[in-house]
Amino acid sequence: MEIRQLRDSDYKQVRAIMNDWWGGRQMADMLPKLFFTHFSSTSLIVEQNNKLIGFLIGFYSQTKANEAYIHFVGVAPHYRKQQLGKKMYTHFFNQAIEDGINTVTCITSPVNRTSIEYHKKMGFELVNGDKEIDGVTVHKDYDGVGKDRVLFLKRLDKKEEYRNKQQKDKEE
Amino acid sequence: MEIRQLRDSDYKQVRAIMNDWWGGRQMADMLPKLFFTHFSSTSLIVEQNNKLIGFLIGFYSQTKANEAYIHFVGVAPHYRKQQLGKKMYTHFFNQAIEDGINTVTCITSPVNRTSIEYHKKMGFELVNGDKEIDGVTVHKDYDGVGKDRVLFLKRLDKKEEYRNKQQKDKEE
Repeated sequence: MEIRQLRDSDYKQVRAIMNDWWGGRQMADMLPKLFFTHFSSTSLIVEQNNKLIGFLIGFYSQTKANEAYIHFVGVAPHYRKQQLGKKMYTHFFNQAIEDGINTVTCITSPVNRTSIEYHKKMGFELVNGDKEIDGVTVHKDYDGVGKDRVLFLKRLDKKEEYRNKQQKDKEE
Repeated sequence: MEIRQLRDSDYKQVRAIMNDWWGGRQMADMLPKLFFTHFSSTSLIVEQNNKLIGFLIGFYSQTKANEAYIHFVGVAPHYRKQQLGKKMYTHFFNQAIEDGINTVTCITSPVNRTSIEYHKKMGFELVNGDKEIDGVTVHKDYDGVGKDRVLFLKRLDKKEEYRNKQQKDKEE
């Protein structure tokens, strides 16, 4: 299993598998080519035997200083429950720390309980919204009328703390 | 008429008018909230008497050094043919020059002849593709299967040239 930086040329294969990986939902239009052209340096591909099995699309905010945003994360159905997502998130967090980022945000739909639990496990907190659905705080009409969203935020370690931890891990 | 920087809070009103400004086409989903949250510093709103009459969504590429990308430009139907688009593009170009950007790119659909002519008038060149449709060079399947796109590129003045020109304009 190899994690590498996304390339512009990965677009076709990612687009081809997206709706399938999301169980038939029409997801591909949410990921136009521009992310592959302009945000590849902060995005990742995971391959096994040259076969695409995971990807993460993220970027650094141009408005919010030191903040990164994760737009899309996908894992091939047959490779789930193998910590592949965790590996990609961790890789993204570590690169972000090295680049001076201190906060990572992302969003999901309130119906997507699996995603909400997953993000909590990855160390994200829920950002307080203006509505509650089944005990979850939600931002009403966040992505358009009727498109409520759950907002996540994670504070990253400072570069120095992160490097100290890495050093300690090596020594142990 | 006032041009100002986009704000996160502009999202609702922009989203509300989009499909209408595009003659009923479902455009709004192509502009998720993230552009308003993370790329507002390079995006613009035009208002007249506090009413939204135009917007431009752009950002600086994180992969391609010194390159900017314009994702969306909209002008209210009753305010077309009044150079409003030109004002927004020029504003974006000038800010980009000040920020050290030397190239601006954007895309459009091959069927959108008005957009193709407009971009040429704004100083964009067509980037050679792998296909030709009615004399226009096109990039096949650029944004997914069947989604051919026309690619535009404009070289900006260098900061010094730009400032010299501005100085000369003032003097004349």
